[in-house]
Amino acid sequence: MSLQPDFAMTAHSDGLSASEIAEAVRGRKLSALDVTEAALARIAKHDPLLNSFTDVTAERARAKARAIDAAVTAGQNAGPLAGVPFAVKNLFDVKGLSTRAGSKINRDLKPSPRDATLIERMEAAGAVLVGALNMGEYAYDFTGENAHDGPSRNPHDLMRMTGGSSGGSGGAVGGGLVPLALGSDTNGSIRVPSSFCGIFGLKPTYGRLSRARSFPFVYSFDHLGPFARSVTDLALSYDAMQGPDPEDAACTTRPAEPVMSLLAEDIGGLRIAVAGGYFQNNVFPEATEAVARVAKALGTTRTVEIPEAARARAAAYVITASEGASLHLDRLRRRPSDFDFAVRDRLLAGAMIPAPLVDRAQKFRRWYRAKVLELFKSVDVILAPATPCVAPKLGQTTFMLDGVEMLVRPNMGVHTQPISFIGLPVVAVPVPLQPMPIGVQIIAAPWREDIALRVAFALERAGVASAPPPRGI
Amino acid sequence: MSLQPDFAMTAHSDGLSASEIAEAVRGRKLSALDVTEAALARIAKHDPLLNSFTDVTAERARAKARAIDAAVTAGQNAGPLAGVPFAVKNLFDVKGLSTRAGSKINRDLKPSPRDATLIERMEAAGAVLVGALNMGEYAYDFTGENAHDGPSRNPHDLMRMTGGSSGGSGGAVGGGLVPLALGSDTNGSIRVPSSFCGIFGLKPTYGRLSRARSFPFVYSFDHLGPFARSVTDLALSYDAMQGPDPEDAACTTRPAEPVMSLLAEDIGGLRIAVAGGYFQNNVFPEATEAVARVAKALGTTRTVEIPEAARARAAAYVITASEGASLHLDRLRRRPSDFDFAVRDRLLAGAMIPAPLVDRAQKFRRWYRAKVLELFKSVDVILAPATPCVAPKLGQTTFMLDGVEMLVRPNMGVHTQPISFIGLPVVAVPVPLQPMPIGVQIIAAPWREDIALRVAFALERAGVASAPPPRGI
Repeated sequence: MSLQPDFAMTAHSDGLSASEIAEAVRGRKLSALDVTEAALARIAKHDPLLNSFTDVTAERARAKARAIDAAVTAGQNAGPLAGVPFAVKNLFDVKGLSTRAGSKINRDLKPSPRDATLIERMEAAGAVLVGALNMGEYAYDFTGENAHDGPSRNPHDLMRMTGGSSGGSGGAVGGGLVPLALGSDTNGSIRVPSSFCGIFGLKPTYGRLSRARSFPFVYSFDHLGPFARSVTDLALSYDAMQGPDPEDAACTTRPAEPVMSLLAEDIGGLRIAVAGGYFQNNVFPEATEAVARVAKALGTTRTVEIPEAARARAAAYVITASEGASLHLDRLRRRPSDFDFAVRDRLLAGAMIPAPLVDRAQKFRRWYRAKVLELFKSVDVILAPATPCVAPKLGQTTFMLDGVEMLVRPNMGVHTQPISFIGLPVVAVPVPLQPMPIGVQIIAAPWREDIALRVAFALERAGVASAPPPRGI
Repeated sequence: MSLQPDFAMTAHSDGLSASEIAEAVRGRKLSALDVTEAALARIAKHDPLLNSFTDVTAERARAKARAIDAAVTAGQNAGPLAGVPFAVKNLFDVKGLSTRAGSKINRDLKPSPRDATLIERMEAAGAVLVGALNMGEYAYDFTGENAHDGPSRNPHDLMRMTGGSSGGSGGAVGGGLVPLALGSDTNGSIRVPSSFCGIFGLKPTYGRLSRARSFPFVYSFDHLGPFARSVTDLALSYDAMQGPDPEDAACTTRPAEPVMSLLAEDIGGLRIAVAGGYFQNNVFPEATEAVARVAKALGTTRTVEIPEAARARAAAYVITASEGASLHLDRLRRRPSDFDFAVRDRLLAGAMIPAPLVDRAQKFRRWYRAKVLELFKSVDVILAPATPCVAPKLGQTTFMLDGVEMLVRPNMGVHTQPISFIGLPVVAVPVPLQPMPIGVQIIAAPWREDIALRVAFALERAGVASAPPPRGI
């Protein structure tokens, strides 16, 4: 997937990583405009099948690329992401676009007057926004099957799901259309498509990255984060986006803590354990195999019990459904038939949850968070499946597990929900099983993205984790 | 109410302030045991009418008093509250007592194995616990009329309410049985009885004083605080109780910020305003008169608008009812007929509130808090009534206001709820109108109890605020 180091000025940037592109652009080996045109050409060629993009911002991208090239020509530092094409889940505000958040209803919103903070920061680092990406309606989804825009399709098998809700983000990066994409994760919406599409995804600590000017879902566990085909690219974009932002009240005030220079640090001293019990049950053999490979590569045989994970998932659902309903109550009243019916019915059910149940879920959550934080006194990293299985077929509604027929849609997040519920940082790393990849969660204590990324980097270097080439396109 | 400075060793400590008692005990002018016996005698004499106490811990008190006297005799520092009798609302854990929290049901709990943190701190400062105090059931009350223990009675007129829910705290201090008492305030339960009983009460900033080992009501706006007959005594007890406590997760980690030495500081530089609009409507002339007297004494004619105060009160009620229901759900199922029926019905109604309404109340709360905090950029102190009227008659269910018949019980907190909802510190100061006193709220920015107490102290020194002698006993 990597060009030789002596490449000449060329439009052949297909398959280059973000760091390779930025280095080539800064070194005048590639022009940002050529890189942009190549990305637009890949989108034009493959996206009719992948259905990752809902908007392509070609003119904006070309203008930005020309500005980068001008800066390089003028001898200026064009930034760590100079000329790198990226795209964002369509719940990020993009100046001039209505922030549809996967819905039909939001298309009637006025065009956004300003980009989301994270887009501004990516572009300040030299990156070039090429479009907005398909997603499950209002992010209440694990499949990537959008009722209005059609399903995003898995780049390794077009008949399979990307996972969701950041389905287009998974498809666009997994399919090599762009080296970087941004998405959001409330209950697993970065980690599930990372797993199904065979790429790296970072769900940072709650509060680490600003959510300003993005469309929300569940305030207290909405996270934004990047997707990439390598840990280096993940860290590069993460570093570009870090830092306080008064426009998101939940965003940390602690200064940025760059991780790029730490990736190659030795991980020998880290205490690593596999999540036991709940996280080893209700999985298909592929998930077990992926975790085992990662654990073996890391030389750990230890397991650790995350207490009451099943209750944590239930509590996450109760809060998600009721807060989601609160967010959409006016739209449910005014435009019920413009929702994806499945999403609407989940929200209507959420609207009728009695408040004391939610209060108990919140009380449980405080208890659970304290218990899990205690675990991190004796362990630095916890390993768990990112999904219970590889990507299901599009339209598939159930699967059989231990002789029980279970619903696909709600059960894709069985292993992710108990983690995001309390805001822990996670890197989802792809294990390139055949024929379909599957992800493993590298979970660390709050604010220790550096640890999770170092472990992911070591796994990548050891050849255990890698983004496979797209086999479906 | 104050003894002459040359008093001899005597049991005549009736009417002495906490600071006078502590000074006399430390100076061997009074024995702690005599002070304790005098308090027990006052309780025995007056409490059959006042009904403030549900438990008198006579033997414990005598043992503590003897220990204080022994320390003094041994030349040790017996503490800033040496020998000062105090009592606590019966939702504080008292070692050996079941924490009834005003209920019948809780009497079946096991006796508490340990005192509440605030009791431990009061006793570490030399204070002597003499008993536990009557309160509205589970603190869901503004009247002080307990269905199981009978109503606490107003020391200025035995046919009137103390206010609630810390009714016994108001009655015991207003009636001179003890110089200090502790209570709790979720929607006004310290400030309402302070107002009706003509005493000083401090509801500190949310998180300032530990709630460890007290029976809760609404986690995110439960506060504990002291009652006294002077600002000096209020500050003395507040300073004794301050400081972090890991056993209350909401308790601040900032170190204690003692206020005692700051009370007499000049308040000339403070920007003081009267709350307008909502806080000047729906009040009886007495409340208007009390605020006017305080404003005049402070030389202010400025008013300030607290935005959306009516919505804040509504939101406080929605959260109170639903979180209260969550707290009591199991008891409501198991022992519905053992509740005060009025409390039970409020809780049952709360159990059926749809969660999205509570979520919206919480979202509004974040907005409202930010708006009110902005006000404190241009003002240091806000004045508002503590109650809309003087103490109503016991059993009174409605009153006429502007030609409208309104319910007494829910409307006593009309001016307190919008303030505690966002955790602002407040000193309630008594204005001794005839025949019944009424309180005014001195409201400051978070963590600025010092400012509210300095203003209260200035008002006391100016003779505008004072605790009148009990006229009913």
